[in-house]
Amino acid sequence: MTSNPSIAEWLVTYGNLAFEIVGTLAFALSGLIEAARKKLDLVGMAIVTALAAFGGGTLRDILLDRRPFFWVENAVWIWVILALCALALVFLRSRHIELTEKSMQWPDAFGLGIFAASGTQIALIAGVEPIIAVIMGVITPVFGGVLRDVVVNEIPRAFNDHQPYAVIAFAGGWLVVLLNALNLGAFWAVSISALAMVALRIAAIVLGWRLPTWRV
Amino acid sequence: MTSNPSIAEWLVTYGNLAFEIVGTLAFALSGLIEAARKKLDLVGMAIVTALAAFGGGTLRDILLDRRPFFWVENAVWIWVILALCALALVFLRSRHIELTEKSMQWPDAFGLGIFAASGTQIALIAGVEPIIAVIMGVITPVFGGVLRDVVVNEIPRAFNDHQPYAVIAFAGGWLVVLLNALNLGAFWAVSISALAMVALRIAAIVLGWRLPTWRV
Amino acid sequence: MTSNPSIAEWLVTYGNLAFEIVGTLAFALSGLIEAARKKLDLVGMAIVTALAAFGGGTLRDILLDRRPFFWVENAVWIWVILALCALALVFLRSRHIELTEKSMQWPDAFGLGIFAASGTQIALIAGVEPIIAVIMGVITPVFGGVLRDVVVNEIPRAFNDHQPYAVIAFAGGWLVVLLNALNLGAFWAVSISALAMVALRIAAIVLGWRLPTWRV
Repeated sequence: MTSNPSIAEWLVTYGNLAFEIVGTLAFALSGLIEAARKKLDLVGMAIVTALAAFGGGTLRDILLDRRPFFWVENAVWIWVILALCALALVFLRSRHIELTEKSMQWPDAFGLGIFAASGTQIALIAGVEPIIAVIMGVITPVFGGVLRDVVVNEIPRAFNDHQPYAVIAFAGGWLVVLLNALNLGAFWAVSISALAMVALRIAAIVLGWRLPTWRV
Repeated sequence: MTSNPSIAEWLVTYGNLAFEIVGTLAFALSGLIEAARKKLDLVGMAIVTALAAFGGGTLRDILLDRRPFFWVENAVWIWVILALCALALVFLRSRHIELTEKSMQWPDAFGLGIFAASGTQIALIAGVEPIIAVIMGVITPVFGGVLRDVVVNEIPRAFNDHQPYAVIAFAGGWLVVLLNALNLGAFWAVSISALAMVALRIAAIVLGWRLPTWRV
Repeated sequence: MTSNPSIAEWLVTYGNLAFEIVGTLAFALSGLIEAARKKLDLVGMAIVTALAAFGGGTLRDILLDRRPFFWVENAVWIWVILALCALALVFLRSRHIELTEKSMQWPDAFGLGIFAASGTQIALIAGVEPIIAVIMGVITPVFGGVLRDVVVNEIPRAFNDHQPYAVIAFAGGWLVVLLNALNLGAFWAVSISALAMVALRIAAIVLGWRLPTWRV
């Protein structure tokens, strides 16, 4: 970014930040809901919520050997997670669970877009091949949910819900690669790809798109 | 430590080392017991026992990008784990399992204290913010058990046993931070905090303290 | 290797490479079969297949702090995994599953040999103690399967199938250490040990060797 950004850049910068906050909260809440369903205690809640929120990005950074992690650099998020758990302990009731989960798929779409796009871009900057960068872009939004489900003894939903989610991250990652190849710059490559993935994901939810099933 | 330590320092140094040995053995035995319950073979026993003993510290070191790991630097522990497994194969019977598990909670308290305190101190030295250091101090004694349970397909006990265990590590971590802020030096910060956590944990066991339950 | 290798060296080099390809394919197919059994979708198939193929080596490299990973350096393997999944989606039927699994144990033996031997050698070169190098040699071929089973909510087969598999990797690892001590050079240490392990594993399958059971 230049030191004197245009209004468009300013808007998109804050748009990206808003996506990040909304997406992280949606990921965290998916962990909280899972913890409530499994009747975990305060400790289990905090760990599963944190895994859902930060697990994907942390795994990507371990694979790319990048430090510090998002949650280490933005330690305020630890307090946000702990506050969410405390609030849930007081206010969350069974009847909220299904409702919360259903409404979470919308903000979750923003998390998918921004984390897949920025994950791919981060990996490209780290100097890996395009296909590896795209895989890192898939891992970022997907593996938080995978870890969340594995630790509470469920087959990850991402593995068998036939939702176009990781597939959108995969396609969107190639868009990031393409826009980088066109020399659009990291900022616009991420922003445009993130928006495209959010749009695709919302279309997938609204129109009920499904992955092909096999006939085993 | 000075090159001419006082008797107090000498005692505390060996006290810390004793805590470490007793704690690691207790963690290892919790893995062995879990393996016996699940009727794992020699390979499963060794892996689950090693995960329970070293998993938490190893995860902390991966997150902090520290090497070498405890078990790489002290490779004799690998032989201890293998010897424990061989002994268990010959001597352990069903009727020992519950008894061993019940008696293990006492030495386990020493593991909690020393690994939470030293985990927090190690993270502080690595230069992270206090809240992150405290989280690393919680991960060190807690995640061995989490990994032990996850690999044998159980929801981690730490997530739903309502025991004040991770919570004591969290509180004790802040004591480490405070004592560092008071310039007591790493040695005394760790030793005093470890002792305080052991005392708290034993009080929690004796007095039957429980975490609050939610009403989902 | 010298710049003017003998025919023997040339043969062994390509033998090692062939072992690696055959072994990786066998590991990948074990993931694919598991995904089919659990009726995972395309995303779950790809992730479980990739974990089975690369999980062990990746975990070893994270523990040794080595980069780049095998699949990052040889990114063509990502395409192979994706192609396998697409083919399975079209051609794999229930009646193929048991047959494929049974026939996979032969190529899998080559994977065991080459990955245990090269994993031990890589760790020795990284400068760790022999026992640690041997453990890394066990992790390399074993933990792909462990991760494959853990993410789909099964107790890892390696933990309770009483097969001499990890145990062969352990013994073969010590052979690598011995041949290094005899100054045979990494190339021959790996090649001879890999071959010995393949032979042992095939003997174990043919002769039906089993690990001792305990009497819990």
